[in-house]
Amino acid sequence: MTGRKIFLNTDEMPRKWYNILADIKMNPPLGPDGNPIGPEALAPVFPMNLIEQEVSTERWIDIPEPVLDVYSIWRPSPLVRALALEKALDTPAKIYFKDESVSPPGSHKPNTAVAQVYYNKEFGIERICTETGAGQWGSALSFACSQFGLECKVFMVRISFDQKPYRKSMMAAWGGECVPSPSMATKAGQEALSKDPNTPGSLGIAISEAIEAAVGDETGKTRYSLGSVLNHVMLHQTVIGLEAKKQLEKVGDYPDVVIGCAGGGSNFAGVAFPFVRDKINGKQIDIYPVEPAGCPTLTRGPFVYDHGDTARYTPMLPMHSLGHTFVPPPIHAGGLRYHGMAPTVSQLVAEGIAEPKSVTQVSAYDAGVLFARTEGIIPAPETTHAIAGAIEEAKKAKEEGKEKVILFNYSGHGLLDLAAYDKYFAGEIHNIEMSDEDLQSSEEVFKDFPTPEALKSR
Amino acid sequence: MTGRKIFLNTDEMPRKWYNILADIKMNPPLGPDGNPIGPEALAPVFPMNLIEQEVSTERWIDIPEPVLDVYSIWRPSPLVRALALEKALDTPAKIYFKDESVSPPGSHKPNTAVAQVYYNKEFGIERICTETGAGQWGSALSFACSQFGLECKVFMVRISFDQKPYRKSMMAAWGGECVPSPSMATKAGQEALSKDPNTPGSLGIAISEAIEAAVGDETGKTRYSLGSVLNHVMLHQTVIGLEAKKQLEKVGDYPDVVIGCAGGGSNFAGVAFPFVRDKINGKQIDIYPVEPAGCPTLTRGPFVYDHGDTARYTPMLPMHSLGHTFVPPPIHAGGLRYHGMAPTVSQLVAEGIAEPKSVTQVSAYDAGVLFARTEGIIPAPETTHAIAGAIEEAKKAKEEGKEKVILFNYSGHGLLDLAAYDKYFAGEIHNIEMSDEDLQSSEEVFKDFPTPEALKSR
Repeated sequence: MTGRKIFLNTDEMPRKWYNILADIKMNPPLGPDGNPIGPEALAPVFPMNLIEQEVSTERWIDIPEPVLDVYSIWRPSPLVRALALEKALDTPAKIYFKDESVSPPGSHKPNTAVAQVYYNKEFGIERICTETGAGQWGSALSFACSQFGLECKVFMVRISFDQKPYRKSMMAAWGGECVPSPSMATKAGQEALSKDPNTPGSLGIAISEAIEAAVGDETGKTRYSLGSVLNHVMLHQTVIGLEAKKQLEKVGDYPDVVIGCAGGGSNFAGVAFPFVRDKINGKQIDIYPVEPAGCPTLTRGPFVYDHGDTARYTPMLPMHSLGHTFVPPPIHAGGLRYHGMAPTVSQLVAEGIAEPKSVTQVSAYDAGVLFARTEGIIPAPETTHAIAGAIEEAKKAKEEGKEKVILFNYSGHGLLDLAAYDKYFAGEIHNIEMSDEDLQSSEEVFKDFPTPEALKSR
Repeated sequence: MTGRKIFLNTDEMPRKWYNILADIKMNPPLGPDGNPIGPEALAPVFPMNLIEQEVSTERWIDIPEPVLDVYSIWRPSPLVRALALEKALDTPAKIYFKDESVSPPGSHKPNTAVAQVYYNKEFGIERICTETGAGQWGSALSFACSQFGLECKVFMVRISFDQKPYRKSMMAAWGGECVPSPSMATKAGQEALSKDPNTPGSLGIAISEAIEAAVGDETGKTRYSLGSVLNHVMLHQTVIGLEAKKQLEKVGDYPDVVIGCAGGGSNFAGVAFPFVRDKINGKQIDIYPVEPAGCPTLTRGPFVYDHGDTARYTPMLPMHSLGHTFVPPPIHAGGLRYHGMAPTVSQLVAEGIAEPKSVTQVSAYDAGVLFARTEGIIPAPETTHAIAGAIEEAKKAKEEGKEKVILFNYSGHGLLDLAAYDKYFAGEIHNIEMSDEDLQSSEEVFKDFPTPEALKSR
């Protein structure tokens, strides 16, 4: 019997996160006046210790003991050789996936949620507000808050709130409060509802609501928390790739291709950044973020300065964007419905270090079902995009007759997304692609903003 | 940082199951005429290789390579020290749980599903029919059938079918077909519906339906599969306790108390039987099956001969029973809604080797929520009974000031049962206990059957 899993013991867990800001140059975030902002501008939104981490350029940052302790509930996560999928594809490629679905909320999200809640607690914060798309982030933050004894309030994009009722229950099990967004509780929410009372909502609107709710607390004990996009979030997620690297070393392999699905960019960054470092240092390696054709931020959106949220509460960030007012179509991969992309990931794409791919909704589900019936586990709709990317590479390897090592991030399970699989089997899942007209009109919103340069890393 | 998890590597997985029939004496199953039946009587229902296993008294039975290979998708499962729960309870006890929730369907059930499907396939069977209560078993069998390429049809107890719609979707993801029971597709189902068109259904009825559907296939290529109760099912589950023992050895511990929730008995048997063997050989160890007060088979039902199903298609088995016509109340722990109990488990109770406990529904959920907010993972409603049992023992240890090692089986996660947690938080979960009148009237059905003796093991 060939072993499928490569385990690490608790004491083999990485003790430091890898900070990509040590190895690439970034355009700074800009304030409303178009000038770079300093850390203090973010102080009402985030605790200062996290802001310091956001701007740090130290290459290695210690993971605090209490964070490691909570990580140890599910980390180190297994690295799995997808032997049954390889067999079904009859490919000479070796396919490995890093199984981040084993965390309590079922995704990679708690890697940063636990860290963020810890730093907030250290800073004296008692309550955290956030938004969530598919519900993975809101669950992760509720879980993390319950571990450290903080309160948690989650604004959940309405379409996902309706499609995935169990996510709210999951947050409740950990003591978190979840409301659908847009809500009437914030100005940003009221405005969105007045424009369209039937809006499915969007991450952009939900972010505005959560920031408003956090900043509006006059006790000063509430902060906002973001589950993706920002540098410190990417930093915390690198534990994924660092573990995967150790695990591959144990079996004497190194990836030719690294793949992650990309919405805001954090699970992709998590698996890829430790390998990006090697690529910058000369390794030959293909790095593919895979996004949905219905929300093609990296593959079709330009590299611009834009806001991270609809109400423009956030600074302008240098990133690929479909425009901060863009409401992505109601694809089932709610976690990939975001108009922007992490500046670090955007920068890598601008420099050609990472090459984005897009996948249609139907082919993503095809890949998910093949995966469930071979590897035995049912992926989240977001994760099916990474699987589709990996399958494409494995097929290419077969055509070329090449032995290739493919690593992808299995970012989450689909156990709370089974209703979407029902629709797939009922033939009710359709491809949604963005039209050129929609793209042009959504780009209108940033046409007067400054333009970032694609700064070279080296 | 103290490690929470004790892992085994793939090559440390047990290579043999432990067969308790080598160590205890059992009353034989009886046919309709009241005489012991031979293996051939079961041939239309089960493949002969599994029937041989059902009656074998060999102590150790090899786990076939292809079964080990599928096991390796999630096995060896982690043994976890519940440090956060211990801290919350301020107990001197060490609490360990064996995490069987990490399997693809989310419970211990595939330990036997994979084995049964393998043996059916070896015997030339192409299609398997079964019943499911909470949906864990139906999912597990669908998963196992998808791994070996067999067809799967599942009759799901109607109340769970309605309460847990995602279970059906999960089975569909693996290619299984799931219908609510009672159905109009079988005589047994038609009869149940004619008696009460609004019946919540029961495992007893669903078993009758599945047997009828299997035996009725004239091609001879269909068999029935049972997820609990029978000897070969208990056998396959012993991989749980055998792994746990190895894992405890690694940290130099041995349990004073072993706990599992008990519906049909299989997850309890899985964790407990390898320790029962030690107890029979002289070890001092408390062994507690924990059942719901709403379906108190072991704690209040007598040790009798009774049928395993409502339509009396099964032989009479020597077991604790509430009567084969008993329809358990609609408690949320659907997997514990069964009138009978595995004959092997019943025999251990009759001999005083295992001491059953019962837990009310509300205290089970209290325990489940405490567990979710300390250990971080959300248990299945069935599993909360084992947790409640473990918490009670940990509290007792505190009162007595005793350092005690408690091991319980974390039989499954509650991610598809979150609607029940919603009800708990809404104050809509109530205690349901069986009245003496109900007990007496349900006992009527076996009063003319033969009586088993509590045969001594040694």
